[in-house]
Amino acid sequence: MSLPDIAAAVAKHRRILITSHTNPDGDNIASQLGLASILTGLGKRVDILDQDPVPSRYHYLPGWERISNDIGPQAATLAIVVDCASVERIGRVAEAITPATMEIANIDHHISNVNFGQYCHVDPQASSTCELIVRVARQLGVKLSAEQATILLSGLMTDTGGFRYSSTSPATLRTAAQLVESGADLAWVAEQLYMQQPPNQLRLLGDLLIDLKLEAGGKLAWMAVTQAQLKRHSFNLAESEEFVSYAIAARGAEVGMLFKEQADGVIRISFRSKGRVDVNRLAAQFGGGGHVSAAGARIKGKLAEVEQTVIAAVAKELA
Amino acid sequence: MSLPDIAAAVAKHRRILITSHTNPDGDNIASQLGLASILTGLGKRVDILDQDPVPSRYHYLPGWERISNDIGPQAATLAIVVDCASVERIGRVAEAITPATMEIANIDHHISNVNFGQYCHVDPQASSTCELIVRVARQLGVKLSAEQATILLSGLMTDTGGFRYSSTSPATLRTAAQLVESGADLAWVAEQLYMQQPPNQLRLLGDLLIDLKLEAGGKLAWMAVTQAQLKRHSFNLAESEEFVSYAIAARGAEVGMLFKEQADGVIRISFRSKGRVDVNRLAAQFGGGGHVSAAGARIKGKLAEVEQTVIAAVAKELA
Repeated sequence: MSLPDIAAAVAKHRRILITSHTNPDGDNIASQLGLASILTGLGKRVDILDQDPVPSRYHYLPGWERISNDIGPQAATLAIVVDCASVERIGRVAEAITPATMEIANIDHHISNVNFGQYCHVDPQASSTCELIVRVARQLGVKLSAEQATILLSGLMTDTGGFRYSSTSPATLRTAAQLVESGADLAWVAEQLYMQQPPNQLRLLGDLLIDLKLEAGGKLAWMAVTQAQLKRHSFNLAESEEFVSYAIAARGAEVGMLFKEQADGVIRISFRSKGRVDVNRLAAQFGGGGHVSAAGARIKGKLAEVEQTVIAAVAKELA
Repeated sequence: MSLPDIAAAVAKHRRILITSHTNPDGDNIASQLGLASILTGLGKRVDILDQDPVPSRYHYLPGWERISNDIGPQAATLAIVVDCASVERIGRVAEAITPATMEIANIDHHISNVNFGQYCHVDPQASSTCELIVRVARQLGVKLSAEQATILLSGLMTDTGGFRYSSTSPATLRTAAQLVESGADLAWVAEQLYMQQPPNQLRLLGDLLIDLKLEAGGKLAWMAVTQAQLKRHSFNLAESEEFVSYAIAARGAEVGMLFKEQADGVIRISFRSKGRVDVNRLAAQFGGGGHVSAAGARIKGKLAEVEQTVIAAVAKELA
């Protein structure tokens, strides 16, 4: 099943529900908004329903308010699930998906996608689901507006770390070129993504960086954020932040780590790698997991003790 | 004059000197190395001569040691000057360029280029001189090697701020796609450029960020680096750093500033803008200058006093 099938599904249905995974990120928000705008332009009646609200850092995306978190009965006869390897990833929105009255389409780029749904377009070679939505638009014969192009470019950029990850293929770069030609404002998107950092977050980052520590001959760079620091800078750990990316940016570091002291006595640990060390395996030692380059774990305990245990174990692995 | 002329110049000469501007950056280093490698592959005898040495952060570029700073008589009969708006920009290398025995070719993307030389290919629409070197290679019928593609991609990335500036055109992105197809390792280049930060530089950045200050209702975000901080972190101000980019990254800031206290009693000031405020005009008030989005100035005086004067003047402009 492929692009023509997605087009056939769209042709067949007039009321369409779009949904995606919990803990939304730049690519799944943008792919939902881009697809909704394209289908609305084709005369469809479209709703977007997600379990979790859109983080404020993505409120620059035109139409983000269209995403409802009000889980209830839906009139749609087609549900398009984007950027999800399996239906489980949509969380409680599953309650609103009724196979008796709805067909399901699946548009995704995760290699672990289980090919659920009556219609699917899954391509693990794609950098992002937004890259696939551009293909869907072409298949549907839709000429993207400048606003649609800007939205979709946002997803390409967030899922490739701003065209820095190895997932940035020639096709990704050509899709980006096409979006800029359609009027996407690349510099504006970059400003929204990278130059809108809350001042208190920058000051807290400073407070962490000044104590950046190295272990294992510099192969491990790590920092910790305490409850006292969070209070001092009025920062809420629930806000999205990428402090750990500054640890892994250290010259010589193969692993970067950030310890976060939560109010409930749990220490959350973020692991990052430059790609040569599998941090999924490191995090698994502490009951966590993730990917080769990014993983996490949670340990109950006192910050100093957890730091000591985990640093010792990771340093041993890197020796 | 255009691409065929550059090809004609290359066909005519066997001993070629490549040079570029003082204070080298990613694009001019990569364009010299890429062009030298291409011409060497065509059987030319090529030297590269620059006034200033290659900064250590660009030592990842294969062949950087080929760039000599030993200014003396040259046997070349063609000098190709890249990434320079005028010959003056090559500094003391001008002493080695002898019009009586040499022709001059000019490959550049600066809008201010004065079209010097017998042969020139100047295109202000190009993101970078490396983008032009890719065109030159195509004109010469050269198929780029993976190493050449990686070198040239580096220049595209540094001159566009990693595909973030408005100079990133559809042609830039398509050129990047072509370079990745030729074997350029985009993720490796990104790692070299953005994930090799000296740990002491990261700690000093922390020391500055913790004191990030806002003025003019948040439209101005600024920091200062003192001699005491430089000593504490063993950091040399001559090393390339982009601390000011963290000030302009603050949400709400239209201008970012960094005051640097030098050992000689001069305060160096860096100005950055998100593009809506002309910092060239602000810097000019203090005898400095630059571009709309990036400028600098130098003022003799005590740090606290210079801060007070400049902040007051800039805040008034932003009011």
